[in-house]
Amino acid sequence: MTTATTGSKTTTVLVTGAEGTIGTAVREHLGKRYDLRSLTRTEQPFPSHIADITDLDAIRPAFAGVDVVVHLAASPAVETPWAEILPNNLVGTYNVFEASRQAGVGTVVFASSNHAIGMYELDGAPSLYELSDDRVYDERVEVRPDSLYGVSKVYGEALGRMYHELHGMRVVCLRIGSVRADDDPASPAMLDSVPMPLDHLSREERRRRMRATWLSRRDCAELIARAIDAEEVGWAVVYGISDNPRQFWSLRSARELLGFDPRDRAPE
Amino acid sequence: MTTATTGSKTTTVLVTGAEGTIGTAVREHLGKRYDLRSLTRTEQPFPSHIADITDLDAIRPAFAGVDVVVHLAASPAVETPWAEILPNNLVGTYNVFEASRQAGVGTVVFASSNHAIGMYELDGAPSLYELSDDRVYDERVEVRPDSLYGVSKVYGEALGRMYHELHGMRVVCLRIGSVRADDDPASPAMLDSVPMPLDHLSREERRRRMRATWLSRRDCAELIARAIDAEEVGWAVVYGISDNPRQFWSLRSARELLGFDPRDRAPE
Repeated sequence: MTTATTGSKTTTVLVTGAEGTIGTAVREHLGKRYDLRSLTRTEQPFPSHIADITDLDAIRPAFAGVDVVVHLAASPAVETPWAEILPNNLVGTYNVFEASRQAGVGTVVFASSNHAIGMYELDGAPSLYELSDDRVYDERVEVRPDSLYGVSKVYGEALGRMYHELHGMRVVCLRIGSVRADDDPASPAMLDSVPMPLDHLSREERRRRMRATWLSRRDCAELIARAIDAEEVGWAVVYGISDNPRQFWSLRSARELLGFDPRDRAPE
Repeated sequence: MTTATTGSKTTTVLVTGAEGTIGTAVREHLGKRYDLRSLTRTEQPFPSHIADITDLDAIRPAFAGVDVVVHLAASPAVETPWAEILPNNLVGTYNVFEASRQAGVGTVVFASSNHAIGMYELDGAPSLYELSDDRVYDERVEVRPDSLYGVSKVYGEALGRMYHELHGMRVVCLRIGSVRADDDPASPAMLDSVPMPLDHLSREERRRRMRATWLSRRDCAELIARAIDAEEVGWAVVYGISDNPRQFWSLRSARELLGFDPRDRAPE
């Protein structure tokens, strides 16, 4: 069911994985801008279509009448083993794109990840995090996944590109930085949560990393809103970070294509 | 078991999908250069380890003592539906890379495909096939898969890159052109076998396409041999076509990195 705003229909947005960190940010910040619907694997304290994205038949009803799908559901950890990557990230992402196509959904916003090109960071750390370092990676660099998780995101982007080109779907892939439930980029919990291959970083190096990779929850929600609203963009891969003092993932395409203008900034 | 040649050990090469069109070309042309072993899903008139690549435990014994894996096993048709892409191309390719890693195999040659970038051809056909057209696509262009099959090849390349970077494996990905059991690029059977999205091409357009995309069976085997032998190349993506009068997939990297020098040429 949609509600009228300024004479036009409110966009109906289905969020997969709506209970996760990013899904929660979307529900908090975008609940008034869109007619939000949720798809989650388990029952939630908010209304949700309960189904597992590994089951195409089970998720199909949730896509009826939807304008935009924001696909967040996946195993989110870089160290996720194959036994979970296969169903949750490979099969699940196919099912979400295919259910979208079958239901005539016009737009899919896909939560990709910087881990699609994570080897550049592993090669460059920790000097890559310094304010004086000028290396920047954009969406045109060769993919260099650092994990099966990263491979699953390269695959999801390729799948999205195919759905865009063969089926006319708008697909925007967001290579999302460090979004955390604890939204303070200097908190100990925030600094503890580096991806596994960076376990060796010192506390100070972790602080510098977060200074570059942080994406605040409201900036993340706003980036997703820009991807939803940029109707003239049929296909894009963009990075998402806040207006941080050091940036080694380029915001150029997010700014130029989507008009993304982050409001938050990690402390120096 | 290996045999001695010129004082050094013959390279032991495991060929997955050894019964297919390319596998047959490898067995015919490279049987004397390497100690070839075969892995096939069904019994064959030649010695083979019988196992399905969808079963990691079942294929693992075939990788013991192997120097190089040539991974050809997959559903090979561009129109292959998801129900077959998932086990044969996504799961199977992971299992082959993982079995290789576990067995300490140093090199994997992965049969990728031009369908990883097939949308450039679909956009450009049929004028792309003309001798006067100068468009050329190399391994640096953005991937634009034309099918789930093409997506599976983008995924396989990303997986190979990860195994190369994290595990030190040599990985060479071959975006292979049109190899057919009937090795005559002008035969009616050859011209009938265009990928599904090109079904609409006229007979003359099909002839022009084959003039550009043909890879003879012996050139294909030689390209695979170059990939096996180029020990200084840790990672590469190259195209494979014969020395055709029209070429819209670049042979530059195959020539420069692998020293590939095709001997056959489709007729004008």
